[in-house]
Amino acid sequence: MPDQSTICAISTPPGIGGIAVIRLSGKEAFLIADKVYESPLIGKKLSGQGANTLHFGVIKSGNNLVDEVVVGLFKSPHSYTGEDIVEISCHGSVYIQQQILQLLILNGARLARPGEFTQRAFLNGKMDLSQAEAVADLIASANAAAHKLAITQMRGGYSREIHQLRAELLRFAALVELELDFSEEDVEFADRSSLIELSTRIAKLLKKLTESFRLGNVIKNGIPVAIIGETNVGKSTLLNALLNEDKAIVSDIHGTTRDVIEDVVNIGGTLFRFADTAGIRETTDTIESMGIERSYHQLGKAAIVLLVTDISGPVQPIIERIVKIRKKITDQQLIIIANKVDIASKDDQAELSRFPLLPREKLVFIAAKNHDNLDQLIRMMKQAVDFDSIGPEEIIVSNIRHYEALSKALRAIEQVIEGLNTGISGDFLAQDIRECLHYLGEITGEISTDEILGHIFKHFCIGK
Amino acid sequence: MPDQSTICAISTPPGIGGIAVIRLSGKEAFLIADKVYESPLIGKKLSGQGANTLHFGVIKSGNNLVDEVVVGLFKSPHSYTGEDIVEISCHGSVYIQQQILQLLILNGARLARPGEFTQRAFLNGKMDLSQAEAVADLIASANAAAHKLAITQMRGGYSREIHQLRAELLRFAALVELELDFSEEDVEFADRSSLIELSTRIAKLLKKLTESFRLGNVIKNGIPVAIIGETNVGKSTLLNALLNEDKAIVSDIHGTTRDVIEDVVNIGGTLFRFADTAGIRETTDTIESMGIERSYHQLGKAAIVLLVTDISGPVQPIIERIVKIRKKITDQQLIIIANKVDIASKDDQAELSRFPLLPREKLVFIAAKNHDNLDQLIRMMKQAVDFDSIGPEEIIVSNIRHYEALSKALRAIEQVIEGLNTGISGDFLAQDIRECLHYLGEITGEISTDEILGHIFKHFCIGK
Repeated sequence: MPDQSTICAISTPPGIGGIAVIRLSGKEAFLIADKVYESPLIGKKLSGQGANTLHFGVIKSGNNLVDEVVVGLFKSPHSYTGEDIVEISCHGSVYIQQQILQLLILNGARLARPGEFTQRAFLNGKMDLSQAEAVADLIASANAAAHKLAITQMRGGYSREIHQLRAELLRFAALVELELDFSEEDVEFADRSSLIELSTRIAKLLKKLTESFRLGNVIKNGIPVAIIGETNVGKSTLLNALLNEDKAIVSDIHGTTRDVIEDVVNIGGTLFRFADTAGIRETTDTIESMGIERSYHQLGKAAIVLLVTDISGPVQPIIERIVKIRKKITDQQLIIIANKVDIASKDDQAELSRFPLLPREKLVFIAAKNHDNLDQLIRMMKQAVDFDSIGPEEIIVSNIRHYEALSKALRAIEQVIEGLNTGISGDFLAQDIRECLHYLGEITGEISTDEILGHIFKHFCIGK
Repeated sequence: MPDQSTICAISTPPGIGGIAVIRLSGKEAFLIADKVYESPLIGKKLSGQGANTLHFGVIKSGNNLVDEVVVGLFKSPHSYTGEDIVEISCHGSVYIQQQILQLLILNGARLARPGEFTQRAFLNGKMDLSQAEAVADLIASANAAAHKLAITQMRGGYSREIHQLRAELLRFAALVELELDFSEEDVEFADRSSLIELSTRIAKLLKKLTESFRLGNVIKNGIPVAIIGETNVGKSTLLNALLNEDKAIVSDIHGTTRDVIEDVVNIGGTLFRFADTAGIRETTDTIESMGIERSYHQLGKAAIVLLVTDISGPVQPIIERIVKIRKKITDQQLIIIANKVDIASKDDQAELSRFPLLPREKLVFIAAKNHDNLDQLIRMMKQAVDFDSIGPEEIIVSNIRHYEALSKALRAIEQVIEGLNTGISGDFLAQDIRECLHYLGEITGEISTDEILGHIFKHFCIGK
């Protein structure tokens, strides 16, 4: 039973601005708007106006003028939610926004819950569940890569392909379930070789998608970077310099849980997540060692490790540190930062430059204090995860719910394939297929256990 | 020479929201929008669409999809600025907002200066200067009274009346100036008794308006409240309690310079401006006494003085303080707050209750810590400036520029009246009228020294 209420909310960012937009959606959107709207043309009602039109007028609370506004009208089903929508553009005073909202509620609208417009768009079939989720990602997107991911997903992304493969699988499921009804007769409605072919195609896609998650997660939540180095080599100065570089924005990403000791920073359109691993240095203290162990664990989760060293001191300890750190990291990009180059000797720089680096290692000389060569360091960091290589058509999963559902669907379809190869009974096969369908359906929002049965009745009309 | 460029800006409040609106105004608004907009209907251009219509589509940067949007179209002269306007409703991600803005600039638009859309509305004759100013006040309005003032002014307010009276005075000015041209012939084109009648009407209005400014200023900038009291009577606790009461909003009012030690707080729709006068207490220290003198000066500027006392202690010192503070204040409302009533004796409360109060004094027993009786205190504070008594048609000046112009215009028109009564020469009379016209014109934005001459030529067509 769908919710028949008319909902309203302020749709623009909170606070004061030139204008603000208050959105009203539902069966009574036009009726409610007409109770508070007054046109300069006497007798003109919004209810009588065409779809996709704009109307100047005033909002009144009894005899009190609340604001001069422009009202936009959208008619069901050709609107975002699929329902009638009225959008009121008012002056962007917080007081006015609140007044209009209260007035709409007073006249029969209900305050919308978070995401309820998009939820209605999903319930009204304007988009699938993964598209609805992408809307939230799109709004939270703070850099080019995350934006690209979200908008691709919102426009259909991989959910269209999943939806299609699922529909094919659903047909087989119906046939397999039908076999169970006629089990005593030993019929085979579902062609096994076609089912293997389809399952293999599904497994291939799911594999590709789950594998893309590592990159997708990094794009969405930031490239994890660990800054390590002994005290007084300039770690804090470097982090502060990076924070100030290129109008970096420290952002709190919506919908992600993150450790309070992490700084998420947008540097020139790329999101970096700096983990605090300041604790990594030599020590003989046991308690402190435990802290260092935890820091090394952080290191393992990083995609980039920044080893900060002081090139104004002797070179040999730096080389020793590099050798040591190599043992701690596996597939991370290691960037060796020789800091304080402004007060270092040319000989020391030359000596460090001669030290042979491994493929995943890079060396850069900087003076964090003066921001010298910081741009080169940022370039190196960006190259570590090469977003620009992502093709416009490339499918990347960034949603952990999808990742989990895809992983479970993959396991299920692999069992289907194995079962088909070993010739297991229809009962087990149907169960594995149903599981795969369930998880695929979770992504697009099609899940429902009655669905398979419904599918049978619809296509076969046995009338039993 | 009006600015022919097409301007663009984000019109909604800064930050992340469901949607954001980017506004484009000027001759090339449709052309520029068409360079970045793509309709799902192949070949559809915004330039070919009707006024006051809404269009779904996408914003593209080359081949890259930036966002799905709804575009609203307004056509000159029926728009806010009087120019062609395109409003792009996009998803409210900061990244998307910035991308679209940059794209518009890349395609020929210029970033709008603050208030430039409204400035254009004024330049294009959509509103007068005082109405344009009211738009800013409206957006900044944080309570019912300030909102009422701003919207009345935006809808015409007193500027319509000023405009009309000024037009009448301008006719007389033209006649008086004409007399000067024919001075040798000793003619009198301007009827002196009619001029006295008009000037008196103008003076009456200006007097009423300038007198309304005290209230208008208080409405717009907050009721100045001074909290005084000895240490440990609970001043800070009270202020914090007031800040938390009724979802009080501490707001930074746009366009007003305020002392950093003032808190502007919206309590239940009324704006209060708390001045820090914590320094007022007994002292023998000379330096500290100077600070206290400054505090007493603050007291003089307050509309309400809150004297906080501790009723859990002896009553006699409280009565002594009341007597003392009476000498320092003149027409302020004094509210005597007997704090810590929760731990006070009934006898002490009764004794203080018996102390006779003057007409502008009130007494309230509270326990700031527990928020006991705070609502009663707030009610008393609100009654101190009775906003609700303001009639819907009442004219109130809240703009200091208007106040200054009105004051100068009033002085000038009083000199006109005096001159007419004493029969001064046409030269001086013309000079005083011109001054009054100048200041009245400053309010509506009509000022221009060529104007009077232009008026003569237009109405008299002498052809000289």
